[in-house]
Amino acid sequence: MQKPSIPKGTRDFGPAQVARRQHIFNVIRRTFESFGFAPLETPTLENLSVLTGKYGDEGDQLLFKVLNSGDFAKDVTAEDLASGSKALLPKVAEKGLRYDLTVPFARYVAMNRGTLTFPFKRYQMQPVWRADRPQRGRYREFYQCDADVVGTDSLLCEAEIVLMMAQVLGGLGLHDFTIKINHRGVLRNIYQALGGEGRETDLFVAIDKLDKIGREGVTKELLERGFSELTIDTLFALLTVEGSYEEKLQRLLAGFVTAGVEPDGTRPSAAEDGQDTANYRGLTELAEVRDLLTASGFKQFDRLEFDPTLARGLSYYTGCIFEVKINNVQMGSVSGGGRYDNLTGSFGLPGVSGVGFSFGVDRLYDCLEALDLFTVTGETPTRCLITHFDVASGRAALPLLAELRAAGIPAELYPDASKLQKQFKYADAKGIPLVIIMGPEEIAAGVVKVKIMQTGTERVLPIGEVVTALTAE
Amino acid sequence: MQKPSIPKGTRDFGPAQVARRQHIFNVIRRTFESFGFAPLETPTLENLSVLTGKYGDEGDQLLFKVLNSGDFAKDVTAEDLASGSKALLPKVAEKGLRYDLTVPFARYVAMNRGTLTFPFKRYQMQPVWRADRPQRGRYREFYQCDADVVGTDSLLCEAEIVLMMAQVLGGLGLHDFTIKINHRGVLRNIYQALGGEGRETDLFVAIDKLDKIGREGVTKELLERGFSELTIDTLFALLTVEGSYEEKLQRLLAGFVTAGVEPDGTRPSAAEDGQDTANYRGLTELAEVRDLLTASGFKQFDRLEFDPTLARGLSYYTGCIFEVKINNVQMGSVSGGGRYDNLTGSFGLPGVSGVGFSFGVDRLYDCLEALDLFTVTGETPTRCLITHFDVASGRAALPLLAELRAAGIPAELYPDASKLQKQFKYADAKGIPLVIIMGPEEIAAGVVKVKIMQTGTERVLPIGEVVTALTAE
Repeated sequence: MQKPSIPKGTRDFGPAQVARRQHIFNVIRRTFESFGFAPLETPTLENLSVLTGKYGDEGDQLLFKVLNSGDFAKDVTAEDLASGSKALLPKVAEKGLRYDLTVPFARYVAMNRGTLTFPFKRYQMQPVWRADRPQRGRYREFYQCDADVVGTDSLLCEAEIVLMMAQVLGGLGLHDFTIKINHRGVLRNIYQALGGEGRETDLFVAIDKLDKIGREGVTKELLERGFSELTIDTLFALLTVEGSYEEKLQRLLAGFVTAGVEPDGTRPSAAEDGQDTANYRGLTELAEVRDLLTASGFKQFDRLEFDPTLARGLSYYTGCIFEVKINNVQMGSVSGGGRYDNLTGSFGLPGVSGVGFSFGVDRLYDCLEALDLFTVTGETPTRCLITHFDVASGRAALPLLAELRAAGIPAELYPDASKLQKQFKYADAKGIPLVIIMGPEEIAAGVVKVKIMQTGTERVLPIGEVVTALTAE
Repeated sequence: MQKPSIPKGTRDFGPAQVARRQHIFNVIRRTFESFGFAPLETPTLENLSVLTGKYGDEGDQLLFKVLNSGDFAKDVTAEDLASGSKALLPKVAEKGLRYDLTVPFARYVAMNRGTLTFPFKRYQMQPVWRADRPQRGRYREFYQCDADVVGTDSLLCEAEIVLMMAQVLGGLGLHDFTIKINHRGVLRNIYQALGGEGRETDLFVAIDKLDKIGREGVTKELLERGFSELTIDTLFALLTVEGSYEEKLQRLLAGFVTAGVEPDGTRPSAAEDGQDTANYRGLTELAEVRDLLTASGFKQFDRLEFDPTLARGLSYYTGCIFEVKINNVQMGSVSGGGRYDNLTGSFGLPGVSGVGFSFGVDRLYDCLEALDLFTVTGETPTRCLITHFDVASGRAALPLLAELRAAGIPAELYPDASKLQKQFKYADAKGIPLVIIMGPEEIAAGVVKVKIMQTGTERVLPIGEVVTALTAE
């Protein structure tokens, strides 16, 4: 007899967990939709020709590949086998599981370019699969919730990402958060200030490690790579400017001017506004995002941090980048995103730029659980259990049962005339808040007893008044 | 440059389709929950040891298998390769994609037997995958919506399945339906009446073809298998009894008594009720289901048909069986189910019986579309687009935008100050019903123009009254 199990890194979600997860999805969906994002769903299976090469070598390794159906090995020769798994792969598998939501979105936009109206705002909440080594908080099947706008350069989109992040977190009761924002243009200007142009990757790799190895570690690494101590000091002076959002903009501007960094072009809207940061695109755009937020009534600037060290690994970002942390829980970022150019280039549709971001539902779940922010959910949606004395009183309860359900109160009649104690144990174990006792005596008197399970209090009500009394609660 | 595509038998769902599908899921979910069914979600990936052998040989063929990650071919020898795909499979794949929702549910119940409270009522709405030949209405990835109760024999569950089927179809606006009901016990009694016991499979196979090859074809087949003409006449007399639900029960009872069929045991509840069909379990239970429905206020007996020819292929059914057709659309059954014994036997937990049923979302979708029953949904949830004249008026619109969203009205400001014509085209293409025009003139006057896209009518409103006016609609 086999002992049943599920694959490593996957999970079953029982009733209480599904209800909690649905709560998170609902808050995110409502927010996305209120900002005009439309839902998209793409297939679980994608052609490997679509997926391969989009996530780097490591990503290709982590793709789950699906064996061709039927006689999958019919074209495999002994030579193929001898040349190893990598050479064998294209002969036995042509489909894989969705690895993220961005590549399928790009594929969808490219395939439907003729019929879509741009700007196209879509959200997508679906599971993705990665053959990662499973560990705490890292699963092989997990959900992503993405929202992207393609087909516009407007910084309104960036401002709205901040608004949506704050609205979702507030809607979930997660009030102690920090939204970090930076701009790839700022990072580029910093490289230029160091005379490090052309060696951006070295600097980038080092900065990305700042969290892990600290200033000392990064300094050591940069010295080994031939950067001077003066350069490194300048780097840290720029990266670690302090002050408010506004003060950091001004201090970096001063730093760039001192270092003789060439302005990298203006945006007309910024010029009109007369921003004095106008000639450095990164700073200009960050200032404009701040102004759009202010005009939108955004009040949480204490939770929006301009962090010049924020890099985000994905190289396709080209403008603003975002990352969100919950401060009172030990947990990686729960959301992130940024602006990219050329999303659909590899699918034959160049020049489609956009901006998007994503929530990690599993991390949000863990945060809410750690902070005890879930309202108590039972193991069932049932609000009311009617006990079952015997066949006759069971039948007599059916009209009330139908009435409760019609009034929107999920209800059950215990299916068998078991011992009352067993029926109460059932209500207790499932977390059903109300039990209606309706035995022969009650029926004869035209009443029912309603017991509130949490307090144990009972009250007697005429049968005809039960639904009104319970809907009033 | 690759031309992107999706695998055969899979689909992208754009915004309007997702909205319509969500409508179907919501109606089903609300119904399931109002009857006290709790949500369960199981992983997409299951171990092949769990899936294989549960769906027959054909099912095993149709399972999508997932290649082991990493160097999947490392243990494969030239001899393995020579012995073909079937022998090779266990060496390269140990996981597969969910094929239905019943086996994962059984696996879940068996794995969690120690902590679950029975009766356990669960619903599950998730996609499943089958490597079937794609054709019209048949996909390789499609959704199932199942509800099952395990751990009780109560016929209340059967009655509630009929109630839920009727409620979901009514909720979707599908009023011209037939719920067919039969009982495996009735089929068994019919076999007995023919003296065909022990040859049930022959009869069963023939009856199952009645729809396709007609009475003549079935007769021919049964003659070839050695049944007498008299037997076959008796068979058809029993299978094709006419009349109401009640009349069919009585006529079959008379037929069984005449044929000298031995009663197959009683149910105490039926005996108490003094049903005269008491000694034939199938007839007894069908009578009790009818009584429970009547007591529940069920009024649609004209849509509930007792059909003694209903067989349903799956051999694990042991009691009542169900199937639902929409009469005014050319479409296979949209729902079906039945009672089974021993759901979890193959996972080491014998004796768990239950009853369940399933909706096919894709077929429901096609019915609703064929009957034009979807309310018009645009390509976006946005109810209201604010036009964008220039930078200053764009910014001036942001407080109104925030106010609309806070009032629960999904809204967008067109992201760029493009030509007005382009912005209107955008609203039109996306199906946005309202456009708010808020240019420099309007701002100076403290008003906006609201245009109803469908009628073209415009009205001028003070900015401060827009939200109240739109929420009132």
